[in-house]
Amino acid sequence: MTDTAPVDLLVEGTLVDVNTGTLEDRAIAIDDGEIVGFGARPATNRIETGYVTPGLIDAHTHIEASMVTIPQYGEAVVPRGVTAAVHDPHEIANVLGPDGVVEFCADADRTPLKALLTVPSSVPASTLQDTGGVVDSEAVDDLLDLDSAIALGEVMDLDGVLDGDEEIHRKIASARERGLPVDGHVPGVTGPELHRLARVLDTDHESVDLSEGRAKADAGFHVYLREGSTSRNLTALVDLVDAVDSRRLALCTDERNAVDLFDSGAINTVVRRAMELGVDPVTAVQMATLNVAEVYDLPFGRIEPGAPADMVLLSDLESWDVDHVIVDGVVDPATDTPPATESALPTDTVTFDTVTPADLAIDHSGPGPVTVRVASVVGDFRTERLTATVPVESKSGESVLCGTLAEDILPAAVIERHGGPGNVGRGFVHNLGLDRGAVGTTVAHDAHNCVVAGASHESMARVANRLREAGGGLCVYDPETDDYTTLALPIAGLLADGPLRETAAAFEAVSNAAQDIGLSVPGGVMELTYLALEVIPTYRLTNNGLVDVETGSYVDVVVE
Amino acid sequence: MTDTAPVDLLVEGTLVDVNTGTLEDRAIAIDDGEIVGFGARPATNRIETGYVTPGLIDAHTHIEASMVTIPQYGEAVVPRGVTAAVHDPHEIANVLGPDGVVEFCADADRTPLKALLTVPSSVPASTLQDTGGVVDSEAVDDLLDLDSAIALGEVMDLDGVLDGDEEIHRKIASARERGLPVDGHVPGVTGPELHRLARVLDTDHESVDLSEGRAKADAGFHVYLREGSTSRNLTALVDLVDAVDSRRLALCTDERNAVDLFDSGAINTVVRRAMELGVDPVTAVQMATLNVAEVYDLPFGRIEPGAPADMVLLSDLESWDVDHVIVDGVVDPATDTPPATESALPTDTVTFDTVTPADLAIDHSGPGPVTVRVASVVGDFRTERLTATVPVESKSGESVLCGTLAEDILPAAVIERHGGPGNVGRGFVHNLGLDRGAVGTTVAHDAHNCVVAGASHESMARVANRLREAGGGLCVYDPETDDYTTLALPIAGLLADGPLRETAAAFEAVSNAAQDIGLSVPGGVMELTYLALEVIPTYRLTNNGLVDVETGSYVDVVVE
Repeated sequence: MTDTAPVDLLVEGTLVDVNTGTLEDRAIAIDDGEIVGFGARPATNRIETGYVTPGLIDAHTHIEASMVTIPQYGEAVVPRGVTAAVHDPHEIANVLGPDGVVEFCADADRTPLKALLTVPSSVPASTLQDTGGVVDSEAVDDLLDLDSAIALGEVMDLDGVLDGDEEIHRKIASARERGLPVDGHVPGVTGPELHRLARVLDTDHESVDLSEGRAKADAGFHVYLREGSTSRNLTALVDLVDAVDSRRLALCTDERNAVDLFDSGAINTVVRRAMELGVDPVTAVQMATLNVAEVYDLPFGRIEPGAPADMVLLSDLESWDVDHVIVDGVVDPATDTPPATESALPTDTVTFDTVTPADLAIDHSGPGPVTVRVASVVGDFRTERLTATVPVESKSGESVLCGTLAEDILPAAVIERHGGPGNVGRGFVHNLGLDRGAVGTTVAHDAHNCVVAGASHESMARVANRLREAGGGLCVYDPETDDYTTLALPIAGLLADGPLRETAAAFEAVSNAAQDIGLSVPGGVMELTYLALEVIPTYRLTNNGLVDVETGSYVDVVVE
Repeated sequence: MTDTAPVDLLVEGTLVDVNTGTLEDRAIAIDDGEIVGFGARPATNRIETGYVTPGLIDAHTHIEASMVTIPQYGEAVVPRGVTAAVHDPHEIANVLGPDGVVEFCADADRTPLKALLTVPSSVPASTLQDTGGVVDSEAVDDLLDLDSAIALGEVMDLDGVLDGDEEIHRKIASARERGLPVDGHVPGVTGPELHRLARVLDTDHESVDLSEGRAKADAGFHVYLREGSTSRNLTALVDLVDAVDSRRLALCTDERNAVDLFDSGAINTVVRRAMELGVDPVTAVQMATLNVAEVYDLPFGRIEPGAPADMVLLSDLESWDVDHVIVDGVVDPATDTPPATESALPTDTVTFDTVTPADLAIDHSGPGPVTVRVASVVGDFRTERLTATVPVESKSGESVLCGTLAEDILPAAVIERHGGPGNVGRGFVHNLGLDRGAVGTTVAHDAHNCVVAGASHESMARVANRLREAGGGLCVYDPETDDYTTLALPIAGLLADGPLRETAAAFEAVSNAAQDIGLSVPGGVMELTYLALEVIPTYRLTNNGLVDVETGSYVDVVVE
C-alpha cells in the first residue's frame, strides 16, 4: 500500500484516545481491517460521526447467565458497541466438561464478537454433588492452548490456594507458564489473607464497597467494578476511580440476565452508567477498553495504527448513542444468530427418568410433626442453620414429610440429570413464599442438576417431568389453572436455542408466573438456582442429600 | 509459611505505590525474596526509612556506551536504586555477533542488576563496511529464546520496515510470535510515515521536542523521554507528562558515558531531574518502574504481594537520597565487580598488523593541490557533501595527500580490525580542530573498526599501533611531549576490564589530552566514534573507502 492509494474507509469524528487520555478530532484511516493511520486521505468510503471509541471489552462475564450461546450474545451486544467480552464458561463446563467448553467457544466463529476465554478453574465446585463435567488440571492445560484462551478463569477455591492444594496450583502454573494472568474471586477477604491471595491472583470483581475495592487495589489486584443484572456494585465503588490511578481499574458485568441483555446490552450500559455517576468519559471508556486490554495483553481496545479496526461511532458520547459499530474494519457487521443446528453443543443433557410425586418426597414411618433441617433462600448468598417442624401426611398408602405453607417451609428436590445415578436429594426450603404449585430449573449452580420446589410433591413432579421433556429450562406450574409456563433451555439444559427476543419474553413470563403462585424472594425465580450450590453456607440440597457446607459433609434432613 | 511465622524483613516507610498512584504509610513484609504482604507482623529484620519505591528500571540503554561490562554497570547503578535496565547490546553484536551477545548477557549472572535483553535487530548497519559480527534473522530468533530476552531491540532500518524488507520483517515476526514488543528508533519521522511505522513498532526514544513526542504518543507509541550523557531531551519533553496520560510514557538514558556513570549512576539521575522539572514524584517514579514493566510484561517495577522484593529505601524522595537498595529481598547486595577473567568475552579482537604512516596515506602521483571529498564531524549527526583542496607532499620518496591544519582538514583512516581483510580506508575529516598529534578509537559506530585522525600520518600510525597493542580503546598522541594517553578497552575493543573508577579517570584523561592537542568538536573525543557510521549523511569513511550515505555507494576521495 502506498500512501496515496485510497484506503477502505475513513472515519471522521472526535476520537476518545485511550492511549493519551484525550479527546482529539481525527480522521481515522482503515484498510484491510486494520487502523493504518490518522489524517485526511483518499478513501473508498467515508463516515462522519460525533465520537469514536474503541470497541468495548467486558472485563469479566459469564455468557451462560444470559441463557444464550455466544452468537446470540453477540447479536445483542455488538450493535451496542461491545466488540469483545472476556468470559468464563464455568456453567457449560460444569455440565459438559472440557469438550463442552471447546464446543461453546467454537460457536464464537459465527459472531463478530471477540469472545475471549478464561479457562474455568473451579469445576466442579465440590465433590459433594454429581456434575456433568469435570475440568481437572490436565484439561485446564489443554484448554489454555485454545486460540481464544487469555487467562485462567476466576479461582474460587481460596482455601486450596492458601493451603497449597496441588490441583489448583497446577492449574495456576499452567497459566503462568504461558505468561497468562489468573483471575480471582475474592469476596470479602481482607488483611493478611487478602495479601496472600494477591501473591497468586491478578484480578478481582467481587468488591461490594469502597473499602473492599481500595484494599484490593492496594494489594495489587486489578479491581473490576461490577454492574450486572443481580450484583450492582458500581455506585458503591465509583469513588475508587478518583481515589487511585484508574489505569488498573476496569468495568465488568459478571452476568446479565436475558431480559436485560435483550433490552439494553451489557458492558455498554455500565460505561454509560459510570459517566452518569460522574466518571470522566475518557476514563470510563478506558476502563472498558485499554485497561482490560492491558491485563490480558489484547491487541485491540485502543485506536492506533496497527490495531484491529474495532470501534464504536457515536452521535453522543455520554448517552452512548451508537451510529455504527466496526469490527475488524467491517461496518455494522451482520450479527444475525445462525441456526442453533450449526452448533455442536448437545441438546440431550437432561437424562433422568420420569418422576412421581413419591420419588420427590421423604418417607416417614413415625408420627408427626417432625423436626427437619431446612435450606434457606435469602438473596444475600448466606443462610443460617435453620430447623423447622413439618407434618407427616399419608398419600396413596405412603407416609411422607410435607411442607407447611404457613411457615413458608416447602419440600424441594434435586434430581441428578447428567447421565449419572439419576438419584434424588430430598429436603425442605425456606423463604420462597409459594402459595401453590411449583417451580423448577436445570440452571442450578454449579452442578446444574434439576432443582424443584413447590407447595406439593404433585406439582413438583409435574415441573420436573416438564423440564425433562424440554431438555432443561425453567418451569412454573400453577394448579389453579393447570398451566405450565416454561422457558426451554435445551442446550446443555442451560441455554435457549431460539431468538433472544423469545428467550427474554419467556424468561419474563416464567418470572411473572412464579410471582403469580406466590414466589416472593428478592431474586425471583433465579434465587432457586442457588439452592443447590454447595459452597454457600450453611445448608444446601444436592442430588446426594442435604449438605452442611461449613463442615463439608452430608447431614440428615430429619433431626433425630 | 503461616501468618504468624516471622518474615525475613519488614520495611516501614512511605510507599510510593505506583499501582494506585498514591503515597501510603506501609509496613512491607518480605520473605524468601518476595513481597508477601503489608502490615506490621513479626520479622527477623526490620528497617525504618523515609520513602520506599520499586527498584528503578531504565527503559532503554546501551551498556557498552559506558565502556563497561554488565557487572561493572551494576556496581555503579544498583547502590543508587537502579535494579533493572532494558539494554540493547548493539555494539557488542557488531563486534562479536550472536555469540558475543550471549557472553555479554551471561555476565549478568555476576551482578544483582536485572539486565533485560532487547535483541539487536540492526546489525550490521549496512553492508558497506566490514564488521566483526552479523545478527541475521535466524540469530535473532535464537537470541529471543534467551531467558533475559524481553523484546526486539530498536529497529533502525526504517526503509526496510516500510518497503517490506524480508529480513527485518522476519526479525519482527520472531518477536511477535513470542508475544514480545518491538522497540523502535524513529528520529524526526512525522505524518503518514510515522503512522505506517507505528503499525509495526511499539516504542520510541528519539523525540527531541514536544511536538515530536506528542505526535508519537498520538500515533500509539510508548514514548520514552531520554536523558543521557549526550542526548538530553527531558527538558524539551517534560510537558508531555501533563499533556497526555502519563501511563504510556517512560524514562530512559539510551547511553551514559563512563564518567557520568561513575559520578552519579544512570536512570536514577533522570528520575530526580524529572522531579526537579516539576513532575509529580509518584508520576516520575511510575515512568521508571511500572510504566516500563507494562511495556515489557516484567514482574517487578511495583511493590505488591507476589512481586520480587526489588525496592529503594530513601531518606528523601525528591533528592533521591538512597538509604538502602533491596534486590530479590537482599538488602544492599554486593555489587563488587568480579574479575574480568571470569567473563567469556574475548580480549583479542583487534587483529590488524602494525601500520606505517604510508599505510594510512593516500598516494598521489600528480601535482597538488588536489580537490578531495571530506567527511565532517559536526555534532548534530548530519554532515554536508563537503570538498576541500589539500596539498601533495613527498615523504620517504612517496607522494601522498596531506591535510591542511589552517582549514581544519585532517587525514583520517579506518582500519578493519575484526580478523577480516585488515584493509584501510583513507580520507579526510573536517571540524576536529586538532593542532597536532592524533586521536584514535576502536569504539566506532556501528562497525567498530579502528578510526584514527590526526595532524600527521606519523602520529596517526602511532595511535593505531598503540590501540593495536592495547587490544582496543581510545588513544591520544601528543608529539610535543611524545606522550600517549590511553583508555584501554580490551574487551571486544569496546569495554574496559578494570574498575569503573579507573575507566572513568582514564576517559577524562583522554578527553583532556585530546583538548590539549586542539580537539574542539562539541562532543569531544566521542565525536570521532561517529566518523565511520555509514548511516549518517553524507560522507562517511569506512575501511572500504569513502561512502556517500545518501546514494549508498563508495565514492573516490579525490575529485577527478
